[in-house]
Amino acid sequence: MSLKIKINDNYKNLKPSYLFSDIGKRVRTFTSNNPDADIIRLGIGDVTLPLPECAVKAMERASGEMGNAETFRGYPPEYGYDFLREAIAERYKTFGVSLKVNEIFVSDGAKSDVGNITDILGNTPVCIPDPVYPVYYDSNLMEGREIVLVKGNTGNSFLPTPEGLEKRAFVIYLCSPNNPTGAAYDKAGLKEWVDFAYDTGSLIVFDAAYEAFIDGGDYPHSIYEIEKAGDVAVEICSFSKFAGFTGTRCAWCVFPEELKCNGISLNFLWSRRQATKFNGVSYIVQRGAEASLTGEGIKQCMENIAYYRRNAKIIADCLEKAGIWFTGGKHSPYLWLKCPGDMGSWEFFDLLLEKAFIVGTPGEGFGECGRGFFRLTSFGSYENTRKAAERLERFFKENF
Amino acid sequence: MSLKIKINDNYKNLKPSYLFSDIGKRVRTFTSNNPDADIIRLGIGDVTLPLPECAVKAMERASGEMGNAETFRGYPPEYGYDFLREAIAERYKTFGVSLKVNEIFVSDGAKSDVGNITDILGNTPVCIPDPVYPVYYDSNLMEGREIVLVKGNTGNSFLPTPEGLEKRAFVIYLCSPNNPTGAAYDKAGLKEWVDFAYDTGSLIVFDAAYEAFIDGGDYPHSIYEIEKAGDVAVEICSFSKFAGFTGTRCAWCVFPEELKCNGISLNFLWSRRQATKFNGVSYIVQRGAEASLTGEGIKQCMENIAYYRRNAKIIADCLEKAGIWFTGGKHSPYLWLKCPGDMGSWEFFDLLLEKAFIVGTPGEGFGECGRGFFRLTSFGSYENTRKAAERLERFFKENF
Repeated sequence: MSLKIKINDNYKNLKPSYLFSDIGKRVRTFTSNNPDADIIRLGIGDVTLPLPECAVKAMERASGEMGNAETFRGYPPEYGYDFLREAIAERYKTFGVSLKVNEIFVSDGAKSDVGNITDILGNTPVCIPDPVYPVYYDSNLMEGREIVLVKGNTGNSFLPTPEGLEKRAFVIYLCSPNNPTGAAYDKAGLKEWVDFAYDTGSLIVFDAAYEAFIDGGDYPHSIYEIEKAGDVAVEICSFSKFAGFTGTRCAWCVFPEELKCNGISLNFLWSRRQATKFNGVSYIVQRGAEASLTGEGIKQCMENIAYYRRNAKIIADCLEKAGIWFTGGKHSPYLWLKCPGDMGSWEFFDLLLEKAFIVGTPGEGFGECGRGFFRLTSFGSYENTRKAAERLERFFKENF
Repeated sequence: MSLKIKINDNYKNLKPSYLFSDIGKRVRTFTSNNPDADIIRLGIGDVTLPLPECAVKAMERASGEMGNAETFRGYPPEYGYDFLREAIAERYKTFGVSLKVNEIFVSDGAKSDVGNITDILGNTPVCIPDPVYPVYYDSNLMEGREIVLVKGNTGNSFLPTPEGLEKRAFVIYLCSPNNPTGAAYDKAGLKEWVDFAYDTGSLIVFDAAYEAFIDGGDYPHSIYEIEKAGDVAVEICSFSKFAGFTGTRCAWCVFPEELKCNGISLNFLWSRRQATKFNGVSYIVQRGAEASLTGEGIKQCMENIAYYRRNAKIIADCLEKAGIWFTGGKHSPYLWLKCPGDMGSWEFFDLLLEKAFIVGTPGEGFGECGRGFFRLTSFGSYENTRKAAERLERFFKENF
């Protein structure tokens, strides 16, 4: 029996991703041949430290409230509880950004917002950096949109600029600090994109999921730190990396009131989208997120971030010492290195596993421009990261 | 400044819904003129009883686990933890339905699944009952799909059949027990739809969110209780009504492996959709949902359902006594009555508020065919429902 309905044919153009299953297979083969090898995983793209205590306490308390007739809560507001939207607005104030509560939409994850935003957009070509978080690319492929890639390379330190891009209206996806390259735009770099968008009438979808890793300097936490960005940019951010919420699920996006297309407010379109296709985030989770934005919460979150930063510095120092070209390691949990000796990503993967018992991620999993590059992350334990750095030092010395 | 991108023009066709804000306005006006009126709300479409104790305990425990390095969990599986998918499959066994774990996709809400399913579908006309839960209609309007309405009325007891429908492939939305009418298809009634879908190659999107209210008899909890339904139907269900999770957020949908269109598995398409645009449900919430499906959990959930059922029966008995035509009140928390004296929905709303201090929901808020009908719900307290029934008895006697 076959249905006679039409399906979304664009799904046929999606390429299956075998990146992490291929990594798993190679690691399994290696360990079965080398059962005593003490493997260290520096490929983890997920936080590993437990949640800050204040978030845990808040969620325990909120769970209890849900079991009590006086404090029980039914359907949450589709756009988030005001207590959380207000806490998020307060956080933006510390970046010098002033947002209204109705410009902030709470969601279950940045991936949902990044993926669902195509719903309110029409058939405009999109502009996506390469390499990049695969959701930008795949979610637009699913809609049959024309995709223009802007290329990251050693020449631009994996921070592509709008230079050379056709002067027309695009939907432009930017991620800074970047996944997977760890590269972050400074204010001048991000301003180039805002100016391009302003001149061409493009929309920027700015993914700020890693902003908590920014460590001083002239690096914006929010795109709205750039003048006129409110006219051209949506911002998507998350509690996943800031508060370790990858398994707890809470994020938000910002649609400034001034963001308009032929007089139609994108904030209004998104509010219709969310009210129709989304029913809000769990009360319990929103209380946890709120707690992470209190003074004590931010302190606890930043202690975890400091732990990962220390790891990143250990790896960065090691790469520098070995004279390896890389981006990230500062303002980011990621390090993106050029495979030495002009090796291919997978070739380097195999060698690193065989000689140093270290697992990383081949860069070509994030786009064509990732060929010959390799991602390491700082989400492991301090002890393992130190041990890995020692091995890396020997590995580079002995092999290159 | 105006963006020059294209937006989704179909959003222009969405009609703003003022139903609940209009109700709010009228109630506020009434109470300001009648400050002493003891108003009873029988319009609530949300659960009001606190969560079952075992779900609360499980979520408190899971929150604690997230604060501990040994038990912390990062990104959840996009399709749900196996512990929950297996618990859902066990529940289906009690309906005589056998599902594989990979046919079940856990999500943050039935509204999300109902709304997002258009993503994987092409431009096929959709068939939607009138009156109905507005998300079916609006989410398809957003995609510019042709919409054919099948009409509910006193003749078919608000259970439209495929009779008279053009014999072609549709995407058919069904909700049973129905929101807002409370009417439920028995097996024979649902089989007519499955047979029509099988004959025409149509896909049925079956919304079973209210299945927990089914109270014996030949009424299917799942569409897969009907032969061959696995070839033609997706089922969407939720913990919202079963376990009182409207504010906690957890649901699931079922894509049977045999559901195919030109050799392409809809299960595969949905798995791609979810892996790209969704990152799974909070671990804490999934533990709460799992707990509600244990033996003790089901017992506690059904105690809450029994409470609402008793309320529904009180209102149903009262309507019967007054000779009012209605559907629901059994197998459903909703009662859908024909406004007596051929009154319009809003006219009846005002009279009921003025004479009996009772707030309900005008039926026309759920579609054209709801004109002249009115929804009452059993989600209030037992005490208020009894008081409301006494007032209703007097109200019908004195006014009709």
